[in-house]
Amino acid sequence: MKIAMIGAGGWGTAMMIELAGRNNDLIMYCRNPDRAEEIRKTRENGEYLPGAHIPEKIRITSDLEEAVEGAGCVIICTPSHVVEEMAARLKPWLMKDAVVVCASKGLADNEGHRLSEGITKEVAGITDKIVALSGPNHAEEVGIGLPCATVAASAVPEAVQIVQDLYMSPVFRVYRSDDIRGVEYGGALKNIMALACGVLDGIGLGDNCRAALMTRGLVEMTRFGVHFGAQMTTFFGLSGMGDLVCTCTSIHSRNHRAGMMMAKGMTADEISKSTNMVVEGIRTARLVHEIALREHIDMPITEEVCHLIKGDHNAREALEILMTRAKKAESETY
Amino acid sequence: MKIAMIGAGGWGTAMMIELAGRNNDLIMYCRNPDRAEEIRKTRENGEYLPGAHIPEKIRITSDLEEAVEGAGCVIICTPSHVVEEMAARLKPWLMKDAVVVCASKGLADNEGHRLSEGITKEVAGITDKIVALSGPNHAEEVGIGLPCATVAASAVPEAVQIVQDLYMSPVFRVYRSDDIRGVEYGGALKNIMALACGVLDGIGLGDNCRAALMTRGLVEMTRFGVHFGAQMTTFFGLSGMGDLVCTCTSIHSRNHRAGMMMAKGMTADEISKSTNMVVEGIRTARLVHEIALREHIDMPITEEVCHLIKGDHNAREALEILMTRAKKAESETY
Repeated sequence: MKIAMIGAGGWGTAMMIELAGRNNDLIMYCRNPDRAEEIRKTRENGEYLPGAHIPEKIRITSDLEEAVEGAGCVIICTPSHVVEEMAARLKPWLMKDAVVVCASKGLADNEGHRLSEGITKEVAGITDKIVALSGPNHAEEVGIGLPCATVAASAVPEAVQIVQDLYMSPVFRVYRSDDIRGVEYGGALKNIMALACGVLDGIGLGDNCRAALMTRGLVEMTRFGVHFGAQMTTFFGLSGMGDLVCTCTSIHSRNHRAGMMMAKGMTADEISKSTNMVVEGIRTARLVHEIALREHIDMPITEEVCHLIKGDHNAREALEILMTRAKKAESETY
Repeated sequence: MKIAMIGAGGWGTAMMIELAGRNNDLIMYCRNPDRAEEIRKTRENGEYLPGAHIPEKIRITSDLEEAVEGAGCVIICTPSHVVEEMAARLKPWLMKDAVVVCASKGLADNEGHRLSEGITKEVAGITDKIVALSGPNHAEEVGIGLPCATVAASAVPEAVQIVQDLYMSPVFRVYRSDDIRGVEYGGALKNIMALACGVLDGIGLGDNCRAALMTRGLVEMTRFGVHFGAQMTTFFGLSGMGDLVCTCTSIHSRNHRAGMMMAKGMTADEISKSTNMVVEGIRTARLVHEIALREHIDMPITEEVCHLIKGDHNAREALEILMTRAKKAESETY
């Protein structure tokens, strides 16, 4: 089966390298022709995944038609805000009943829509085989063949089975799920908590506090997801807890790094400028907080992250507010 | 209310320091009179919690009667294998309806009994107010006033309320739970996974793999606990996921350090000898594996940890076995 990767960032490149272990008809779409040419020549994605070798059999193109035409599986792995637009652009060449995988993470808008919903809308009539792939998968590690596990989720069992078969290898373990909502919300909302963990680490609050933040953060994420129809247990799996833990404790996370900068007193705007990268957690925190207020979902950590972003509270103030909330039973919090 | 701490290890000492912020009648029992005298003089527990100041108002004694008599709350914080024996020893002086808190973590035996069950049996007729306290709480951090959160669990709501009121402060947040089984099993079984994470870190498998191990490890812990009547959601709280994450990612965990040594090829016996400390994870892994086999509970990670302990498999072999198991749905695994 021909597999097309749409987007040549770190994660897209790493997935291609992983897929090359068991698949032979692989093509990666890179929007910029010069970068495509450079990757083709050097067999390395110097900008987003330096140090990982891209096997010869992976073709590189900046022609979307060439990438998509005849592909049984199309994987979209662009920044989250262009996923829907990309689905619209590739639609003319999309094969009937092709599997479309959304490997980007994030929320689509301030209505709580998920990225796969945008894709589903765009490709309706051509295919309903939409799959979300999400889990604790830093590209830097996958690209050099370190082992990991992830979740593929879809409302269409056949689609998720195809993705499991394509990806699964002795270093890449894929679990199936029928809860695409839970899988996508987990991947999006964890960035808020990674930001909060960065702040906490930035002021040196220690391992106990970080573990508590992740645990209570996951409760909040679950509450939000369940409100929008996700299954609770999904949040305790690889796409929820797994990804959360990985992002909050890893040196590779740019959201965590942004939180460390916030702890040092930098504003959200200064951070965005200095890193020259989208800090997904800042955008997601704002969107989720807006939704939570409107829908009356109790999300105290997200609320404090937004106060930090706006500069209303400093880290110590945020911590004190969270620690001195009313006495609770742990079970009353879902 | 008089509060007696039975045991003067790191965690007992740290809890006393925390409790001293809001309570005035505090006494700590230290079995060894010479050590008691040293702590009394230096106001520091040099052996188990160096660097943390023990306030003057905490009395230190090696007389069990003096410690227990008149105490409305008795906290047992000894190594897990002497908890039941200690409950029997302090019983003659235990006040009617006193709250007894079990702050030790571990399994009582190879039948799957919990530590609080041993206490309950010993103090029956005097009090039924038995509480388990467990969460992500490294003594080294609590002792110097860094913030954390934990869970107090009991079948008796009044008992758990008393403990929440005694402990809760702006740096120590306590959640209530009615699931003492889940809270105790979480605290005991997480040590198996900490050992496994140590092995994984010892051979340099990276953050993705570690996050997957924790997530799938928690699934196993949950499966075991639910089999013995615990509530599933408890494992996703502070005493489950929280403690697991904290232990698996912290430099303070001796189980994690033991795993690192195993990765370097040291046997369980060599590790026990070299550290001169009980490696709880090794004992717990053996007990749990025995129970899981007998009760037909699927626990593949625990099984591989036991193979590593016995030297049947090395770390790479264990990893391959876990990664190449049958393709699964994530939800079928609870």
